[in-house]
Amino acid sequence: MASDIELPVPAVLIWKEDQLSILDQTRLPHETVYRQAQTPEVVWQAIKDLAVRGAPAIGIAAAYGLCLGARGLDKKSSADALSALREVADYLNSARPTAVNLAWALNRLMAVAQKHCQSGQSELPGSLYQRLCDEAIAVHQEDIALCRLIGTHGERLISEGAGVLTHCNAGALATGGIGTATAAMYEAQRQGRQFTVYADETRPLLQGGRLTAWELSRAGIDVRLLCDNMAASVMAAGKIDVVIVGTDRVAANGDVANKIGTLGVAILANYYGIPFYVACPYSTFDMQTPSGAEIEIEQRGAEEVLAIGGHRFAADVEVCNPAFDVTPSALVSGFITEQGIIYPPFEESLSQWDTDNGAGD
Amino acid sequence: MASDIELPVPAVLIWKEDQLSILDQTRLPHETVYRQAQTPEVVWQAIKDLAVRGAPAIGIAAAYGLCLGARGLDKKSSADALSALREVADYLNSARPTAVNLAWALNRLMAVAQKHCQSGQSELPGSLYQRLCDEAIAVHQEDIALCRLIGTHGERLISEGAGVLTHCNAGALATGGIGTATAAMYEAQRQGRQFTVYADETRPLLQGGRLTAWELSRAGIDVRLLCDNMAASVMAAGKIDVVIVGTDRVAANGDVANKIGTLGVAILANYYGIPFYVACPYSTFDMQTPSGAEIEIEQRGAEEVLAIGGHRFAADVEVCNPAFDVTPSALVSGFITEQGIIYPPFEESLSQWDTDNGAGD
Repeated sequence: MASDIELPVPAVLIWKEDQLSILDQTRLPHETVYRQAQTPEVVWQAIKDLAVRGAPAIGIAAAYGLCLGARGLDKKSSADALSALREVADYLNSARPTAVNLAWALNRLMAVAQKHCQSGQSELPGSLYQRLCDEAIAVHQEDIALCRLIGTHGERLISEGAGVLTHCNAGALATGGIGTATAAMYEAQRQGRQFTVYADETRPLLQGGRLTAWELSRAGIDVRLLCDNMAASVMAAGKIDVVIVGTDRVAANGDVANKIGTLGVAILANYYGIPFYVACPYSTFDMQTPSGAEIEIEQRGAEEVLAIGGHRFAADVEVCNPAFDVTPSALVSGFITEQGIIYPPFEESLSQWDTDNGAGD
Repeated sequence: MASDIELPVPAVLIWKEDQLSILDQTRLPHETVYRQAQTPEVVWQAIKDLAVRGAPAIGIAAAYGLCLGARGLDKKSSADALSALREVADYLNSARPTAVNLAWALNRLMAVAQKHCQSGQSELPGSLYQRLCDEAIAVHQEDIALCRLIGTHGERLISEGAGVLTHCNAGALATGGIGTATAAMYEAQRQGRQFTVYADETRPLLQGGRLTAWELSRAGIDVRLLCDNMAASVMAAGKIDVVIVGTDRVAANGDVANKIGTLGVAILANYYGIPFYVACPYSTFDMQTPSGAEIEIEQRGAEEVLAIGGHRFAADVEVCNPAFDVTPSALVSGFITEQGIIYPPFEESLSQWDTDNGAGD
């Protein structure tokens, strides 16, 4: 496929000469700084700190992180190498609990490692490392293609003059490619349509304010930043025609875990009769999890709520800080995937959909 | 009435020796600093800057501001004094457009001035000033009593072990007394009940995070601070039994203008079947305004959205920054007033309610 949409932002992840460069998104939009990772620990910390964030991007980062962890295993036996690699995978997987792409990417690489070792080539540890690197690069490349396909299927939802509301950053900064929720926007723009994106700032870490507003404005898309609590007001004013968000995990029944605040946006959209779409590749569907009730929600520290950018504005009080919430499938109009838009009833449509085979396989 | 609820915070407004001391709430909770006002201009600026905020409090501040403006009128004729005073009133009224208490308090003092001048006592300008001061003090004292009565009528909504969600600060810091929305909480506490208040931080100016969380924790009430976009999540978790907010203006049909984000909270409460109450005194009802559609919504500057506490986190993009939104009366369970709780249908119940006669008249 011709990829004629240029990335509006610096690459999130760069794998070069056995080293992973990770764009430190905590410093955006003011500074473009990369963290250099030569060990799984640096990758783990970058995921934990949200230096790299977004379900697809942390899947890719974890895949490269596992490669870095395989380098010390050159001299080990097949069983010992696999066991050590499993430890690294478990460790990387512990960085954040909610996004399924993290586990998905690690499982994919572990399957490659297992196959490689079982085939009796375990005496060639350099080769194991190379096989893992090849697979991590494939995950990365595949993600770029998946984003492009999501855009192809999603662009029809954004008509000329439309108002589009999005939450958090499901953009180029959250993936290897042009994003998930933003892919539809970039493709609609490529086709020459004018529209306005209303970007929730997304407290506490302001991914909408720091990342989405920056990313879309760099791409030349008309973007308005709003505080999260203004979404109802712009909807009431008739400015929003469609909501498009990303997701960190979709359960088998279509329940959606995504950045805290997504549930509220979905309820507002429902109240105003505005369609609510979720954009994601097959790797974000977790058919092993029956419903949203079984999705673990990461709870983060108090300081993120009490302060902003190091500026402590609140007194020392108790806080709530769930990093995600679960939107019930009944509030979802459809999933924009690389294979097309999936409509309700989701128990049925998702069970028929083959989430084991993505575009890149 | 025995006022055995101590104010948990420093007094918002202190009138002493012909000078108004205004607690600068933009510096809370870190610093307790008063602005000294000897002219209407300083009062106007304090209202504009949100150094004093909250519908009842800005009404009281404006009343004192008009007194300060009357001091220069000692030597004028009755007509000239009234005309000059009208100019000061219009000027003070221009500081913020949405809260009706501002206009209400100024009109009340202007009626006193008019009556005074018409009664032929205009040759006693010192007396005009004194009459205005007496009336401003009456407005202030009345507000203290109104808050107490709102608490008396509202406390029954907060049962033992309840979870109460509030938005912005409709607290002691927004009034002369123990607040409007918080009055019910302070009275429930006085009666020995344990409950938890979930306080929305209320972007962009964080009145919930800076003021409500501080105020309630000082009062010994169990308070949890949350980002605005977490309200849906705590409601979904079954933690909220009732929502109580304040308001800046209620239209004749029961539509409610209040701090931006209130509309969203009301829609969420409606979705989860949680009662949504609005606490306010009679002076906040504007029977001259048929519905919310006619309420002017103040639009504020971009920097409030792009930055927090002087920390600029976003790129230079367009923003939305309406300071208020309008909640349709259909989403309101009731109004907690000094005369009791008013229930729907509001067109009917409000038309029968005498908003011209408050408890203090």
